[in-house]
Amino acid sequence: MGDVMKVAFIGLGNMGLPMAINLVRAGEQVYGYDLSPAALRELALAGGIPCDSARQAVDGAEAVISMLPASRHVHSLYCHPDGVLNFVARGSILIDCSTISPATSRQASKIAEECGLDMIDAPVSGGTQSAQAGTLTFMIGSTIEQLARAQPLLEKMGKRVVHAGSSGAGQTAKLCNNMLLGILMLANSEAIQLGIANGLDPKTLCDITNNSSGANCALKTNNPCPGVDPMAASSRDYTGGFAVDLMLKDLGLAIETSLQSGTSAALGSLARNLFALHSAAGNGERDFGSVFDLYGRRLA
Amino acid sequence: MGDVMKVAFIGLGNMGLPMAINLVRAGEQVYGYDLSPAALRELALAGGIPCDSARQAVDGAEAVISMLPASRHVHSLYCHPDGVLNFVARGSILIDCSTISPATSRQASKIAEECGLDMIDAPVSGGTQSAQAGTLTFMIGSTIEQLARAQPLLEKMGKRVVHAGSSGAGQTAKLCNNMLLGILMLANSEAIQLGIANGLDPKTLCDITNNSSGANCALKTNNPCPGVDPMAASSRDYTGGFAVDLMLKDLGLAIETSLQSGTSAALGSLARNLFALHSAAGNGERDFGSVFDLYGRRLA
Amino acid sequence: MGDVMKVAFIGLGNMGLPMAINLVRAGEQVYGYDLSPAALRELALAGGIPCDSARQAVDGAEAVISMLPASRHVHSLYCHPDGVLNFVARGSILIDCSTISPATSRQASKIAEECGLDMIDAPVSGGTQSAQAGTLTFMIGSTIEQLARAQPLLEKMGKRVVHAGSSGAGQTAKLCNNMLLGILMLANSEAIQLGIANGLDPKTLCDITNNSSGANCALKTNNPCPGVDPMAASSRDYTGGFAVDLMLKDLGLAIETSLQSGTSAALGSLARNLFALHSAAGNGERDFGSVFDLYGRRLA
Amino acid sequence: MGDVMKVAFIGLGNMGLPMAINLVRAGEQVYGYDLSPAALRELALAGGIPCDSARQAVDGAEAVISMLPASRHVHSLYCHPDGVLNFVARGSILIDCSTISPATSRQASKIAEECGLDMIDAPVSGGTQSAQAGTLTFMIGSTIEQLARAQPLLEKMGKRVVHAGSSGAGQTAKLCNNMLLGILMLANSEAIQLGIANGLDPKTLCDITNNSSGANCALKTNNPCPGVDPMAASSRDYTGGFAVDLMLKDLGLAIETSLQSGTSAALGSLARNLFALHSAAGNGERDFGSVFDLYGRRLA
Repeated sequence: MGDVMKVAFIGLGNMGLPMAINLVRAGEQVYGYDLSPAALRELALAGGIPCDSARQAVDGAEAVISMLPASRHVHSLYCHPDGVLNFVARGSILIDCSTISPATSRQASKIAEECGLDMIDAPVSGGTQSAQAGTLTFMIGSTIEQLARAQPLLEKMGKRVVHAGSSGAGQTAKLCNNMLLGILMLANSEAIQLGIANGLDPKTLCDITNNSSGANCALKTNNPCPGVDPMAASSRDYTGGFAVDLMLKDLGLAIETSLQSGTSAALGSLARNLFALHSAAGNGERDFGSVFDLYGRRLA
Repeated sequence: MGDVMKVAFIGLGNMGLPMAINLVRAGEQVYGYDLSPAALRELALAGGIPCDSARQAVDGAEAVISMLPASRHVHSLYCHPDGVLNFVARGSILIDCSTISPATSRQASKIAEECGLDMIDAPVSGGTQSAQAGTLTFMIGSTIEQLARAQPLLEKMGKRVVHAGSSGAGQTAKLCNNMLLGILMLANSEAIQLGIANGLDPKTLCDITNNSSGANCALKTNNPCPGVDPMAASSRDYTGGFAVDLMLKDLGLAIETSLQSGTSAALGSLARNLFALHSAAGNGERDFGSVFDLYGRRLA
Repeated sequence: MGDVMKVAFIGLGNMGLPMAINLVRAGEQVYGYDLSPAALRELALAGGIPCDSARQAVDGAEAVISMLPASRHVHSLYCHPDGVLNFVARGSILIDCSTISPATSRQASKIAEECGLDMIDAPVSGGTQSAQAGTLTFMIGSTIEQLARAQPLLEKMGKRVVHAGSSGAGQTAKLCNNMLLGILMLANSEAIQLGIANGLDPKTLCDITNNSSGANCALKTNNPCPGVDPMAASSRDYTGGFAVDLMLKDLGLAIETSLQSGTSAALGSLARNLFALHSAAGNGERDFGSVFDLYGRRLA
Repeated sequence: MGDVMKVAFIGLGNMGLPMAINLVRAGEQVYGYDLSPAALRELALAGGIPCDSARQAVDGAEAVISMLPASRHVHSLYCHPDGVLNFVARGSILIDCSTISPATSRQASKIAEECGLDMIDAPVSGGTQSAQAGTLTFMIGSTIEQLARAQPLLEKMGKRVVHAGSSGAGQTAKLCNNMLLGILMLANSEAIQLGIANGLDPKTLCDITNNSSGANCALKTNNPCPGVDPMAASSRDYTGGFAVDLMLKDLGLAIETSLQSGTSAALGSLARNLFALHSAAGNGERDFGSVFDLYGRRLA
């Protein structure tokens, strides 16, 4: 990797922009594209090259990285007969970091393969802060060879790269983890509110649970009860964390995947519906720990 | 506590008997009572004194410990006008280690108080193996003074004593923790099955999740997927762990408490119902990780 | 029944008072008791005899009718060793019209039987309007002989008397029906909102459903979507109907009974939790069709 | 409609074949296509014309009717650039009777419109018996003019045609109704089992509920408790009714549509998951009332 690489970066949002800038800082030539002129300006300021279209960005690129909001954007970028794949040089590697449905990931990868291109799914965990700090975790769906090719680039944007399995497996692993996380947050809220309603001090209860069989990462690092953990989003009015609507999106993907694969996910489905009610009540942009409020008021 | 204490122990089941025996071994005089003659014989063999009735056991005791199956047994032991409290010496301490509803705990404690007796709730976590090894954790609902009185005895049966709050708080803390645990086990099962149905290797998926935001104690120490953790009950056909019916009992108490305190526990309620379906299908005595099977068969 | 009967009526609330007044109008001598002086005055104005205590009311009564808010009130009236049963003349009939847990009904009836008294459970369906109009439906738990004794009195307060089975069966039948009703209202709301979100006119959708396999009483007579049925509570801002908190109480009793009888009621439990969230958000006194709002806002 | 019409019929399964035969009997010229040679033979025996491909069947047709298993089949028939639409004469009417996602219906209709063709969604209610008897109900998504064109044909296969709204509305109406139906069946099962576990005779309980506020079509015409209604599938071991897997399919479509439209359907989602568990346990082909069994065994 001594040589400078030409990298196309499609999607310069809250996550994509800092990731692209980290590549610039690591010495790569980054050709970026986004619908937002402001994002393109930011990239240029950081030393990247703004492009007028995805097609222009991928022209001559050795690697194409995409970070897009939803399955339909990825589908429209890669899966249309007249999409960018026609303009990507054979031998390039495509890395999709978007969180989308495993089915769309597999479909895009298959189409890429038919074009003689390697495409891997590499969704991230860690929010905008990790994107800026370059400390993201990537969950990869690919062959071992594809992973080896992508790894040097990924390490310039994150600190951990885990191989989940073949194409689509990165997405699936992320959805499984985030479905769990969504359930945990609701479950923690229910348990703490049950304790409070019965006279327990929430700090004491969480101390006990953190050292018992109910212990979980969400309780330890993202306690939903204001005041228990001064560092948690709940202690700053649920600002600056992982937004309800992002959790809702991931739960929606998990349930869609569950429907498609004929499995059942009773708790996951209920979690999705409760976050949907919570979002519809106006809480979409707050930290997802704010579901604590949903359980918060007691009956008379 | 240098002197030998006279302790009454009511309820010598799978948990109570080894606890009582640990007290005997620690040098206390243990007067035990249980409906089962076999249990009484076991106690006698270990050096305890079997009694013909609870009343006989408590006669002259400085401490009374009870370990009973359900709220109604505790109620009938302590709350009836003609119950054993009439025969317990003033100044004795009563320690109820049963897992029952916080409301019954508070009621019993209040009645004891009216008789001039201190009564604390001290439900345990850790199963029969911990009871035998003397490594239980006690969750205590009491005043600080009451806790101080009980602590030396508790330490002869366990390795950790945590003060959850005032009367009933030990029960509430245990129910909150175990409600979480029940939800976790179902959530882990759903997530792993979703992964498997989409081609993931369960071991790889669990490795990823154990190091991500969905990490939780149940996944790490009691993985429900056979083969992932050779030490877990799932890898020995769900034998020898925490039984479905015990989890079901605890979830029932949690939901009962939620109803009584006018809170909602949507996931906890669903968990209770799923374990009830699982038990009704004949799995009551298997490890509670066997709910993995409930999600296990895929649709054609 | 040609002769005037002396009837004690305990509990003169929104339901009890009009029921008692209907008995007065039908020619009975009604001795009423309630904690509220206003209710006693109302009874007196209508021709009944207000009493200072339940004990005074039942003195010499041939029939005792109770209409109380919850299990604990019925328990405290009938099940305490020093309760009113000691003062009711042998051979009297006791009719409890409260909606309470079947277990409490059975317990009270058993205690009454030990006192040589017949006690039946006779919860009602139909709200305050039916109570005033004397058009209530009574669901009876009793022997056939007990029913025969109570029927003439019941017919003076209602238009339909159905025998559900032995002691407690009236309560159980009511809980089963109302658990269904609560689920129906939520299900109707979900279905209509799903239709609206996909461009359907709610009136058209309800017309179709009312003539299809999803047809149900709640959709036909209590449509939760404002404007579909001008006569429904939804078309007058959810006022004047069956309150959320009353539905919540009945669902709570149903789930409590499900816990006690070791059955599962997954949808019923979820319904209870959703109504609890809805009530906790400040909707306790609105018609229970207002859960339509819970599903009403769409995600952005 | 005095003249004989040339009709293409794509999909001659359990529903499509009898529908096509009814058109033959009504005097239309029916060109049928299906992958199954047996189905084509049956059509020929009844007087229809079997074709070797969908393309051959639609050649010269004035109307095209399709009855296919799932969204993907409809998508592949109508939405591919090289699909049959290229071979259908302008001015023809396309009637899709499949039960699929409203989104796919709208997409297909839009593509047809671009080809100068009218396409309506016309999913049916009523099973194979209604298909044979020509008594189906059609739920239509179309313009009024399109409906007018299709109606004469539809009336030869059914007895009721209801206009739900514009393109996709027929599908949505069907999904809303069937989501309700699935919930009703589970709710009825829960309520009846709760009654039985508390000593009620199920017949008596259902009589009461059928005349109370919990009354619903599923309870009256498809009682899930064996023996209550001798005509219901439950009284013949859940054979010959609406299969679990068909209900599961419809619930899956409803939840998929709920995800896509950003609404929540908490009870609908839970119903889908419970039917999925029931199907996965081997009950996919039984009448959907067999979920009664899921709740049927009581805990010890």
